Amino acid sequence: MSIREEALKLHRDNKGKLEVKSKVPIKDRSSLSLAYTPGVAEPCKEINNDADKVYEYTSKGNMVAIVSDGTAVLGLGDIGPHAALPVMEGKAVLFKEFGGVDAFPICLNTTDVDEIVNTILLIEPSFGGINLEDISAPRCFEVERRLKEKMLIPVFHDDQHGTAVVTLAALMNALRISKKRMKDLVVVINGTGAAGIAIAKMILNVGVADLLLCDRSGIVYKGRKTGMNWAKEEIAEVTNKERKSGSLADALAGADVFIGVSAANIVTEEMVRSMNKDAIIFAMANPVPEIEPELAKKAGATVVGTGRSDYPNQINNVLAFPGIFKGAFDVRAAGINEEMKLAAAYALAGLVSDEELSSEYVIPKPFDERVVQAVAKAVAQAARDTGAASISK
Amino acid sequence: MSIREEALKLHRDNKGKLEVKSKVPIKDRSSLSLAYTPGVAEPCKEINNDADKVYEYTSKGNMVAIVSDGTAVLGLGDIGPHAALPVMEGKAVLFKEFGGVDAFPICLNTTDVDEIVNTILLIEPSFGGINLEDISAPRCFEVERRLKEKMLIPVFHDDQHGTAVVTLAALMNALRISKKRMKDLVVVINGTGAAGIAIAKMILNVGVADLLLCDRSGIVYKGRKTGMNWAKEEIAEVTNKERKSGSLADALAGADVFIGVSAANIVTEEMVRSMNKDAIIFAMANPVPEIEPELAKKAGATVVGTGRSDYPNQINNVLAFPGIFKGAFDVRAAGINEEMKLAAAYALAGLVSDEELSSEYVIPKPFDERVVQAVAKAVAQAARDTGAASISK
Repeated sequence: MSIREEALKLHRDNKGKLEVKSKVPIKDRSSLSLAYTPGVAEPCKEINNDADKVYEYTSKGNMVAIVSDGTAVLGLGDIGPHAALPVMEGKAVLFKEFGGVDAFPICLNTTDVDEIVNTILLIEPSFGGINLEDISAPRCFEVERRLKEKMLIPVFHDDQHGTAVVTLAALMNALRISKKRMKDLVVVINGTGAAGIAIAKMILNVGVADLLLCDRSGIVYKGRKTGMNWAKEEIAEVTNKERKSGSLADALAGADVFIGVSAANIVTEEMVRSMNKDAIIFAMANPVPEIEPELAKKAGATVVGTGRSDYPNQINNVLAFPGIFKGAFDVRAAGINEEMKLAAAYALAGLVSDEELSSEYVIPKPFDERVVQAVAKAVAQAARDTGAASISK
Repeated sequence: MSIREEALKLHRDNKGKLEVKSKVPIKDRSSLSLAYTPGVAEPCKEINNDADKVYEYTSKGNMVAIVSDGTAVLGLGDIGPHAALPVMEGKAVLFKEFGGVDAFPICLNTTDVDEIVNTILLIEPSFGGINLEDISAPRCFEVERRLKEKMLIPVFHDDQHGTAVVTLAALMNALRISKKRMKDLVVVINGTGAAGIAIAKMILNVGVADLLLCDRSGIVYKGRKTGMNWAKEEIAEVTNKERKSGSLADALAGADVFIGVSAANIVTEEMVRSMNKDAIIFAMANPVPEIEPELAKKAGATVVGTGRSDYPNQINNVLAFPGIFKGAFDVRAAGINEEMKLAAAYALAGLVSDEELSSEYVIPKPFDERVVQAVAKAVAQAARDTGAASISK
């Protein structure tokens, strides 16, 4: 069977991937009278008297809403909320399997920012955290900003921050090999959607002095007339200080790092050859990377990563989001701040020892069981250190 | 330990009652690549090409949203959406344990009818059915009416229709004992919220000629000035044709059936004695019934039912809603119509054979394993018969 046939069979045979189960046994009248009426009135009364107890007596504190409008689904684009459901169910599966975090897909019949924000605010009682997913840029930034202002529970747009955390971790370890320093790097990011812009912000935050973002219209610069939006204008204020213009090829000449989060096969061997010595290439477009790893290596790159599981150095969000939410939930954090994301990146990078580190292994593998604990612990500590934690544990 | 302590411990030890689990194993890279990227793109593409396939490849078709604003929670009243969550989680547990139906609680930060309706319409892609729960009357009627008009999936307000179905089933069997006919009955219902009004409509629908509804202001009649709302005015048009006024005691004198869905201890032995011979008393207020069964029996009632598990004849919604949704889902019904509800009541009543039937056993017990299958089968058949079914199965 082809992957296509196997995937369809798996989804069809199980009628989707999620089920909602009881954590408590209901085997007789007596257990029923505790989990439901009349016993259930007791936790209700407790929460009615002290709102905080909803975390003690319900599943809210470990429950993530995976919210999408289906406008920017991985590799598929704007396929709508119904067709996006298999991806969101898959995400919920990953939350549970990798992090022990319960998650439920909420696919929305709207692409309107006001309606998305309002709906999430209205369904908040059932959830301890909000994971925004596959909402197209620049609306995703606005949705996230407004929710973070209004909500007292973690709001996290994984396409932005999950990708940025794992990319940063991989970059940190790649620099251990190429012996370069963050502040000296010339970085080029291809893609100005959620991931590209979040990665740009995060690596500027750890000392990269400047970087170039590229999109279909070439290098983004302040004042560019074509293909801009408010999010690109905003990022153009703090990147590309020399106001370079030109193509992706122009950007890559003399660069140290290429980070691709956009389109297949747009980087050539020649472009890699034009980069500085010991170039780092993270070609994360899915399923087809910006350049095949073999070609990038042949053209002189030292470290090559992709989003795929069948190549070394898989830069995969699953390394971050389960542990980030687990850590935030463990201390009932009111949000996920920059320090918590940075702590996750450091924890992830730190799992690769000097002995293990190689150009083929700069980032732990998805099924490395240490990952979720290390990330969760670091995130919880950072939450405590920054006052974002509501409970100490 | 008291029930209170046991119930709190159960909820605290498990941190609530629900978890969201994967139905497919994720044990290695290969299973991950089928359930998530890249394999997951295949069912997405199928659904994008044919919207109906969302029922084939996702969990939507077996997933109920249990939606509440927490304004009329069983026995507790308006405690808000957070404090209502334990009840909604409990309901989800019952859906799964009794019907194999997945259900997820959506508690809403609003009591505004427009916002409730709009939110449910917006989250529809994730759900195959909507179970409204513990929303106060008369808003609940308006919410349900508008959703039924706009949605192509089942919308069911269990406090209304679940209660009505089970009450009707119990009444049918009680009549087998008292040898009375529906059309000759004088029925008194105490309570004009969701349950009272729905029961009234349903028993009128099966041939009861007239009935009296009572609330805190006494008997409801057309033109009454105090304590009315639009829903009571509407039901007053088709009940109490003689425009009787007076107290509950006045109503009960000469009645055959009392159905209580409201307040504890409001029926006295004297009132029961004033009823016709072989009176039927369903005192379903929770947790304390309108009259203790022993007292009602002593005063001459033939059949007495309550909402409680520690007395005979427990008139419990759990006998209806799991099977009703299961039956509707089995044939992918576009809604739950009157015929489907009636079929559920007949199926439920029919499970009590002539040999088993007694004044202590007019309705199956919640843990009777035949119930869900019998109800689901009858509901599915009624859906097919009335053209509500989308698939034949």
